[in-house]
This record gives sequence, structure tokens and C-alpha cells, in this order.
Amino acid sequence: MDGHKQCAHCASNDGRTKQRNDKEFKKLMNRLRRVEGQIRGIEGMLEKDAYCPDILIQVSAVTSALNSFNKELLASHLRTCVADDIRAGNDDTIEELVGVMQKLMK
Amino acid sequence: MDGHKQCAHCASNDGRTKQRNDKEFKKLMNRLRRVEGQIRGIEGMLEKDAYCPDILIQVSAVTSALNSFNKELLASHLRTCVADDIRAGNDDTIEELVGVMQKLMK
Amino acid sequence: MDGHKQCAHCASNDGRTKQRNDKEFKKLMNRLRRVEGQIRGIEGMLEKDAYCPDILIQVSAVTSALNSFNKELLASHLRTCVADDIRAGNDDTIEELVGVMQKLMK
Amino acid sequence: MDGHKQCAHCASNDGRTKQRNDKEFKKLMNRLRRVEGQIRGIEGMLEKDAYCPDILIQVSAVTSALNSFNKELLASHLRTCVADDIRAGNDDTIEELVGVMQKLMK
Repeated sequence: MDGHKQCAHCASNDGRTKQRNDKEFKKLMNRLRRVEGQIRGIEGMLEKDAYCPDILIQVSAVTSALNSFNKELLASHLRTCVADDIRAGNDDTIEELVGVMQKLMK
Repeated sequence: MDGHKQCAHCASNDGRTKQRNDKEFKKLMNRLRRVEGQIRGIEGMLEKDAYCPDILIQVSAVTSALNSFNKELLASHLRTCVADDIRAGNDDTIEELVGVMQKLMK
Repeated sequence: MDGHKQCAHCASNDGRTKQRNDKEFKKLMNRLRRVEGQIRGIEGMLEKDAYCPDILIQVSAVTSALNSFNKELLASHLRTCVADDIRAGNDDTIEELVGVMQKLMK
Repeated sequence: MDGHKQCAHCASNDGRTKQRNDKEFKKLMNRLRRVEGQIRGIEGMLEKDAYCPDILIQVSAVTSALNSFNKELLASHLRTCVADDIRAGNDDTIEELVGVMQKLMK
């Protein structure tokens, strides 16, 4: 996890990075900014002494949004980095994926 | 969910609110601010083309932090609002709690 | 968690039990029997060398069924035991519920 | 999901199956049998009017056991079927994995 790593898909990279195309980058960034806004909204609710269940539901909505974000990012990771790395013989990617999935699964 | 509501614990309130003591308020707010910082950190990772698994793990850490936040808030809700409302005969609180739990449970 | 306990709702009980009416009992038992059947079905899949994703999806269906079971049981617990115990002044029920929720929440 | 499918790893198969070695088969089967026993134990609790929180905790333990089962099965799937299929040019496996992960992720 600590060394430099590059997806075979990202040929010109020299580190543990992944170049995303503009459309994917914007989509992911927009989701994160929306989540950031939701968190600030919940801070505002707390300042206004909002009733617990109303806060609980909003936090739960943020959690759902982050899970959707992760599902999308993982799908892209599987389709590009994982597939390309296996084809290129970088089997470490499989072990890393196994480790990540242990944390992401219910 | 739409009407005004007050926890019996929050006698002087005139709406769907809950007065939290200073210590609890600060603790909850600090957690939210930390989450906000984590989200901005992930935005920065995305801007630097971070490798997918590194982002997946960070997002998963935020999800855990939000779940901890919700567990703490729910515990406080059960101990104050729910207990006080039932004692005061406001049984709607039970039905609302049932609805909230359906969303928060795995 | 280890001592005898009775819900105020279950007045004639002398232990940590809950009397459920016939309809609720049958509904819960039927769900459990169905889950038992699903597990045996998955054992059969394993014996026939079923393909991993097919097994993963079936196991995930069982998990969902168990979560639904727990949601229903918790709803009933909140409406009867918790409400009755608080009215009867048995506040331990609240602390126990707090502990249970920590385990059941996402 | 509907056609016959075989993992490149399972060369002699003629269907949507996966041959597991004896050790893996026994380990997975033992886990399922233990879960089956746990479910029957919960049916017994229900018959003895067990207190709701005691049942909730047991059901939650079964859910955890099934999640561990799925994590182990997925790890094996990634290391064998997925890796072998990609090497063999069967890219459908990636799309199927993407679909499965959407259901298994939190």
C-alpha cells in the first residue's frame, strides 16, 4: 500500500495514481461537493437545535450518497485498472482489490 | 415529520427541536467538522489523480465516522427524547423511532 | 444481559422472555424457516459446484431477509417492551436498547 | 446470468460452475452448516418466548457470519475466476463482477 503504483491503463504515470477522463472526474467531484454541502447543512441543523430524528435521517442520506460514490468508483476501477493490470501481469492488483473489498463489503 | 414537535425533555421549545447541552453540542459539531475536512481531503485526492483504492478506503472511513456519529446521536435520543416522551404520554415518538430505525439498520 | 428480565408487557413472566401473540409468532417463525430453507439451498449449490457470483447473490438475499426479520422484531420490541418498561419505570430497558442498537446499526 | 458459463480456471467444466478444491469446499460447507444450526437455534429461542434483544443479537451474529462467508468466497472468486477469465480474454466476467459488487457493497 505504501509504494508507488500505477495502473497499466495510466501508462505515463510515475506513481500510485490514476488519470480519469474529464467527464468521470467532474461527475465524481460533483458528488463530493454535494456531500460537502450536505455535511454543512447538517452542521446548520445542529446549530438550530434540530430534532434528533431529522439529523439521523440526513446523516443516513449522506452515507447513502458516499456508498453510491464508492460503487461508481469501484466499477470504474474494475473496468480499467484491474482489467488492465491483470492483462499486463501485475497480479498485485488482485490482492489489493481483495483487501479493499473486505473493507467495503457489508 | 411535518408538524412541530418537541421532546418533553426540551420543555421551553416551541418546535421540532432539541436543546443539547454545550458538551454534547461541541462533541457532535466537532465530529461533523472533521467529516467535512475528510471530504475536502478526498476532493484533493481526486484532483491529484489519486489511485482508486486509496480513495475507496478514505470514503469508507468517512462512512464509518458518520455511522459513529449517528450511533451517538441515537443513543442520546433514546436516553432523553424517547424516554421523556413516553413518560409524558407522547407515544408518537415510538412510531417515529420505528420509522427512523428502519432506515438506519443494516 | 445475563439476569432474568421481563417486559412489563409480559406481566405473568418470570424471566427474560416475551410472550408474543400467535399471529406474530407464526410470522416470525415462518421467516426463520424460509431462511433455513435458503441456507440449505445454498449448501446444495455448493455441492453442485455453483459459480461464485450465483452463490454470492443468494447469500446476500439471506442477509437481506435476516435484516428484515430484525427490523420487524425491533419494531415490535419498541412498541411493546420498551414503551411498557419506560412507563413502568424500568429504565434499564433504555440502556439495553442503546447497546443493541450499536450492534444493529450500519 | 442466464447462459452457461465457466471460469477459465475450471477448464473441464461445461457450465456455469466452479470446481473448488476439497479444502475450500469443506471450509465453505462447514460455515454454511454452522449458520444453519444458528438459525435453528433462533427458532428454538422463538419457541421459548425469548426476549427480543437476545434474538436481535443472535440474528445479527448470523448476518455477520454470512458476510464473512461472502468475503471469503469473493476473495477466492477474484483470485481464480476473475483473474483467469481476464487473462483468457473473457471480459464479461468484469461486468458480472461489477453487478455483483453493487449488491454486496454497503
